[in-house]
Amino acid sequence: MIDSRISEKDKKFLRIALNLARRNVGLTGKNPSVGCIITYGDIILGRGNTQFNGRPHAEVMAIKQASEHFLYKKNKRKIKNINVYITLEPCAHETTSPSCAKEIIKFGANRVIYLKTDPDNRTNGKGKYLMEEAGIECFEAKIYEPENADVLKGYLKQKKTGLPYVTLKIGSSLNGKIATKSGESKWITNSLCRKRVQLLRSENDGILIGKNSVIIDNPRLNLRDEFEVIGNKPVFILDTNFKLSSIEGLTLFDKLERERIYIITSKKPKNMSIKSSCFLKGVNIKNVKSDLGFLNIKEVLKIVSKMGVNRLMVEGGASVWTSFLKTGYFDEIVMFTGSKIINDSALSCFNDFLPPDTRLGDFPNLTLTSLQNWKDDIEARWEVRS
Amino acid sequence: MIDSRISEKDKKFLRIALNLARRNVGLTGKNPSVGCIITYGDIILGRGNTQFNGRPHAEVMAIKQASEHFLYKKNKRKIKNINVYITLEPCAHETTSPSCAKEIIKFGANRVIYLKTDPDNRTNGKGKYLMEEAGIECFEAKIYEPENADVLKGYLKQKKTGLPYVTLKIGSSLNGKIATKSGESKWITNSLCRKRVQLLRSENDGILIGKNSVIIDNPRLNLRDEFEVIGNKPVFILDTNFKLSSIEGLTLFDKLERERIYIITSKKPKNMSIKSSCFLKGVNIKNVKSDLGFLNIKEVLKIVSKMGVNRLMVEGGASVWTSFLKTGYFDEIVMFTGSKIINDSALSCFNDFLPPDTRLGDFPNLTLTSLQNWKDDIEARWEVRS
Repeated sequence: MIDSRISEKDKKFLRIALNLARRNVGLTGKNPSVGCIITYGDIILGRGNTQFNGRPHAEVMAIKQASEHFLYKKNKRKIKNINVYITLEPCAHETTSPSCAKEIIKFGANRVIYLKTDPDNRTNGKGKYLMEEAGIECFEAKIYEPENADVLKGYLKQKKTGLPYVTLKIGSSLNGKIATKSGESKWITNSLCRKRVQLLRSENDGILIGKNSVIIDNPRLNLRDEFEVIGNKPVFILDTNFKLSSIEGLTLFDKLERERIYIITSKKPKNMSIKSSCFLKGVNIKNVKSDLGFLNIKEVLKIVSKMGVNRLMVEGGASVWTSFLKTGYFDEIVMFTGSKIINDSALSCFNDFLPPDTRLGDFPNLTLTSLQNWKDDIEARWEVRS
Repeated sequence: MIDSRISEKDKKFLRIALNLARRNVGLTGKNPSVGCIITYGDIILGRGNTQFNGRPHAEVMAIKQASEHFLYKKNKRKIKNINVYITLEPCAHETTSPSCAKEIIKFGANRVIYLKTDPDNRTNGKGKYLMEEAGIECFEAKIYEPENADVLKGYLKQKKTGLPYVTLKIGSSLNGKIATKSGESKWITNSLCRKRVQLLRSENDGILIGKNSVIIDNPRLNLRDEFEVIGNKPVFILDTNFKLSSIEGLTLFDKLERERIYIITSKKPKNMSIKSSCFLKGVNIKNVKSDLGFLNIKEVLKIVSKMGVNRLMVEGGASVWTSFLKTGYFDEIVMFTGSKIINDSALSCFNDFLPPDTRLGDFPNLTLTSLQNWKDDIEARWEVRS
């Protein structure tokens, strides 16, 4: 359907706003990553995107830049045809920062186009209402929907369900194995894939991993190289029986800030000796009920969500991925397939998750959303679609 | 390295010759699929490629067409600047058909460019020699090497080793499984992939399959739909203990011509009762030694080769693929990965093939040569490179 209110120029500026939004995915905390462009005719007066941890908002950044533009300063409030392009409806509410809708009115826009109405109850059409009341032409453009949904998916999932968007990140051999029988997994995939994992970590708000992977692989789970400046993400470790309380010398406790580590367990520490013990000092301990030795995944995700994580990447291992697969609490699989073939008795990426007599047609089907190679290795992205 | 003898126009015509060669891959029997273009200035006088089962050769087809061209007929032998572009050195020998080198001389070419010297002992530079002796400028152009090698790979492998080029064709779930625990495999991959398999069968000279797959999946293994006109390929069934001698009603014995079916077994039929039995009548039985229950793969490939097969597609199942993997007698894997996730205890594409304590670095590494998706399924091609 063609919306006659949207010109080719509008589309171009909305695309630029979308590209700006894309840049800060994973960096804006609980807030969505939004992009904003303010134009006067063909001229861009200001650009902005949501800043680190969510403040200032994109609109405030763009308005700040536009206000300094010599054309605006010279003709202040006299120039007409000011368009504002945003990837999400500007917020109506004022809590820790000014209402973006009101800031846009104050700046003096003539027309505001945004890609999506904000599902947040405090806005959800109220931003539009405020601007229209002030005489600004204002509407939602139904374009770039899949691209914007990809940028906003953590935020939208959170608003809809109260749970984060969950990506299972798997690295396997050509035949679906994640490690040799003895547990050797360095490296199943090549260095380009591992660099990609750094980027994926930066785009997610948190990382989840099982205690077996922590113990066997002893990973760092930090952001490295050019990603180091971003700072580490919170790491959630599933450890039903709190085995980590008795294992010293794990690398991630050195590489990550203690307050960013969460051990989720069904065991209640009997006394404070664990908290004050040297090697777990400062690490957060969270309790969740377990069933047959597996933590309740929904409860785990509620805790993750409460820590401000809208996008969660699950880095393994097999029993953790299988828990998510079994309960259905995942949205996407990113599969890195290396070019090695390994013995079949090596470790698989998933365990059994449905009864042995399940018919082929009753196993889950995913939707392929992207495919590319990194030299001899493959990165495939599969989404759960209902 | 730039070869100053080759112009942009030469490259264009060589590319057309290569495209013609590509078309008949899998249809030319023991002969390589070759393409040939004859030009006069910018005008193509004749096009040809190797015909069904290898005769006539591409050059003969192109010469026949060029001889009928009105420009050639009108000015016969008076026109100069006739270029001949071929993907392989023209043959020097005369056995069942005329020597292409001599035919080109007779036609009256001025310049002959070919992409590759023929490794066949009867030619191997002799075609060039004959033409140069006749005053024709003649040389090998070192361009389009990977593309032409892909067209010629069965022929080149055969000439070099006496064995066919072997492609393992695997269809698996997202997690590397080829069937549920109960053996259900219809369908792990989607209909587009299955159509691709028809194309792959048409591009190969023969199909190899294990008796378990024949019994459990009961496949047709014929060429269907638009590929039907090509005719079926010879099918080689590995059946160490000749189990098929006691199983009636298998579909492929109805769908394929009996003389195109080869059962390769280590058992010697004690009397002729098998040959004359109703349901195996007319099927070829070949004997190969077995070791610990597995047929000697090199001996199997020698038989396949003797039947004129330069390109062999191995359609499974797991124990057959593993035999090729273990012995190293394969050149390529074409992996179709479906979008389903299946229980881990389902059937894997490979069994163990190296000792359990093998280090990760000692497992084989392949080279990815092509990658594409068919809707939600992936087709990846991996080559063995030494």
